[in-house]
Amino acid sequence: FGAQPPAANDPMWGYFTAIAGQDGEIDAEELQRCLTQAGFTGSYNPFSLETCRIMIGMLDRDFTGKMGFNEFKELFTALNGWKQNFMMFDRDRSGTVEPHEMTQALSSMGYRISPQALNAIVKRYSKGGRIFFDDYVACCVKLRALTENFRRRDVMQQGSVTFQYDDFILCTIAV
Amino acid sequence: FGAQPPAANDPMWGYFTAIAGQDGEIDAEELQRCLTQAGFTGSYNPFSLETCRIMIGMLDRDFTGKMGFNEFKELFTALNGWKQNFMMFDRDRSGTVEPHEMTQALSSMGYRISPQALNAIVKRYSKGGRIFFDDYVACCVKLRALTENFRRRDVMQQGSVTFQYDDFILCTIAV
Ligand SMILES: [Ca+2]
Ligand SMILES: [Ca+2]
Ligand SMILES: [Ca+2]
Repeated sequence: FGAQPPAANDPMWGYFTAIAGQDGEIDAEELQRCLTQAGFTGSYNPFSLETCRIMIGMLDRDFTGKMGFNEFKELFTALNGWKQNFMMFDRDRSGTVEPHEMTQALSSMGYRISPQALNAIVKRYSKGGRIFFDDYVACCVKLRALTENFRRRDVMQQGSVTFQYDDFILCTIAV
Repeated sequence: FGAQPPAANDPMWGYFTAIAGQDGEIDAEELQRCLTQAGFTGSYNPFSLETCRIMIGMLDRDFTGKMGFNEFKELFTALNGWKQNFMMFDRDRSGTVEPHEMTQALSSMGYRISPQALNAIVKRYSKGGRIFFDDYVACCVKLRALTENFRRRDVMQQGSVTFQYDDFILCTIAV
């Protein structure tokens, strides 16, 4: 409880500090550079700066606009899961998935979304009727962050939350 | 009630139909092209496609991903207001406003936002400690859409709304 192993023993620590630079934290530009240099997206287009900002926004619970070491590791785990998931549905390696595949992908991640909300998601994240990897990840990040913010307030797990206006803005504006 | 004047009498109608093309509606790419060609952003950088998609998302209440004529006019009115507002705070015409000016700008638009939410907004929409016009508009669009979605559900105007999970996702994922 609260006793984290020293990060210096972690094989990813050196990598993290090299990317983070002097301030010891990773901002959106540093994240974009690191994911591009690591070839994370493979044959897919590199992540846009916008998507990198959304990724940081998802984990940045203290609103510094940057990521520490633990957040960085959490993000990598999530990114690897989304990439595997995307490649499972992008069978022809075109770099895109179709709207109906998006529906399957989200439900395979355990999200239970109504057809109306799914329609809104597809319209928002598709280009020319297809969903590219970058937008797919942006959507996954956003859905995860919104769902986490909702669940954290839904302490009785009733599937409903009463929001004050300011708290509603606080937990939706940055994601 | 419900009797709108025929759009054909509106001086903007010809302009709208030329941009909209065969499907009679404006999508994000058409909007970006039109705002760039019209020189709307002036000496500021043109809007990114991402910001154009957010603009459409704000007004796209039937989730088609496109704008009809009335939405197009509504967007132009809002954009002009935000541009004037931005220029009022960007006194040196650097194309950016400072975080404390952002606070003033939002409260001049009538938003009452807590310091914590303001901090989240600034972190999310600034680059190198400054807020560019494109991100400023993205923020205004998002704040307006979230506030409208909230108010529409706050029928008793009590400043609080009880959301079911699915409705929460529906009114936050596309903005
Ligand atoms: Ca750094
Ligand atoms: Ca494909
Ligand atoms: Ca069109």
